[in-house]
Amino acid sequence: MIRVLLVHDASLVRSVLADWLRREDDLRVYDTSWRAAPGRVASVRPDVCAVDLASSGTPGVPLLGELCRCTTGTGQPRLLVLADAHRPGLLRKAREAGALGYVGKEGAPECLVEGIRRVAEGERFVDASLGSGFLEAAEMPLTRRELSVLSLAAGGASVAEIAGSLHLSHGTVRNYMAAITRKTGARNRVDAIRISQGRGWV
Amino acid sequence: MIRVLLVHDASLVRSVLADWLRREDDLRVYDTSWRAAPGRVASVRPDVCAVDLASSGTPGVPLLGELCRCTTGTGQPRLLVLADAHRPGLLRKAREAGALGYVGKEGAPECLVEGIRRVAEGERFVDASLGSGFLEAAEMPLTRRELSVLSLAAGGASVAEIAGSLHLSHGTVRNYMAAITRKTGARNRVDAIRISQGRGWV
Repeated sequence: MIRVLLVHDASLVRSVLADWLRREDDLRVYDTSWRAAPGRVASVRPDVCAVDLASSGTPGVPLLGELCRCTTGTGQPRLLVLADAHRPGLLRKAREAGALGYVGKEGAPECLVEGIRRVAEGERFVDASLGSGFLEAAEMPLTRRELSVLSLAAGGASVAEIAGSLHLSHGTVRNYMAAITRKTGARNRVDAIRISQGRGWV
Repeated sequence: MIRVLLVHDASLVRSVLADWLRREDDLRVYDTSWRAAPGRVASVRPDVCAVDLASSGTPGVPLLGELCRCTTGTGQPRLLVLADAHRPGLLRKAREAGALGYVGKEGAPECLVEGIRRVAEGERFVDASLGSGFLEAAEMPLTRRELSVLSLAAGGASVAEIAGSLHLSHGTVRNYMAAITRKTGARNRVDAIRISQGRGWV
């Protein structure tokens, strides 16, 4: 039996997905919200965590690291993400967090079952529908520092606040913002934030 | 038999939800993406359209009006939305578009079935979990004109572009932006856009 913990914030969709997975004889399925996920990992001790990064309005990205830290001690569970090819930034964050499996939301639900089985064996699994997303993730034009500046700006911080947080001068922050606007092909700062959020970079 | 057209952009979730609904003897379930929805309404002629407004990265709001226009001629289908209490702006748009049923994503999946049956009878259905969202939707502080300005700003338009689009002076656009920032309790323009997008206002 493969013990699966399904992490998704919308309980309606989560229940239905979990029910669907329970039709498979070799899966034992538990489900939880993002907020409760770290605790459930400890109690359920799943072989595979299948997570939706962008469910509901609360992307699980901030908790992804915590989830991985919970799991590193035991070597288990393996992480599989339900991902969207149009948001390469989220794919990139999942990869950086050590996810082993990637199943596209545009794919067939059978892919999810196959992905869970492969990841449970410790194998990498990437759904074909995510190819373009990974290509775009590899081509992300912004540096890590530019992403930090952009994340703060997207959160509503002013130039002065960003400068204070990152120990930079105001001029340097403005230069970063100008570089970000140019590299994303945006018309201005707000447009750069819009484009980057759409792709899941910030 | 109630003919149901399920509209959701992520085909994996959509297939599983449709399968789940097909277990009910009185439902005949079809499913489609937002892009294909208006055409499918014409061919399937459903009694109820059950739509997820915020599925994938492409909220269906711009198409909601079109979907309603497709259906107005026949008096059918009735519209039911899968909604999120944390995004009162989307609830408001659904209400303005004439949706009859509202099922919360945080509710039990059985609510969706009950909502479909009630809406098929022409009755209003509001899931209890959405109460707070509707309350917040009623308290939305921005005027229609402020929302127009904010939508353009959120799309990356400059003050000059917004002024051109809405036939306003630059100063008037700046006054609107200041009022929006104050009313949303934001620190600045970018913060006002962030707060309003989080609530689904724009």
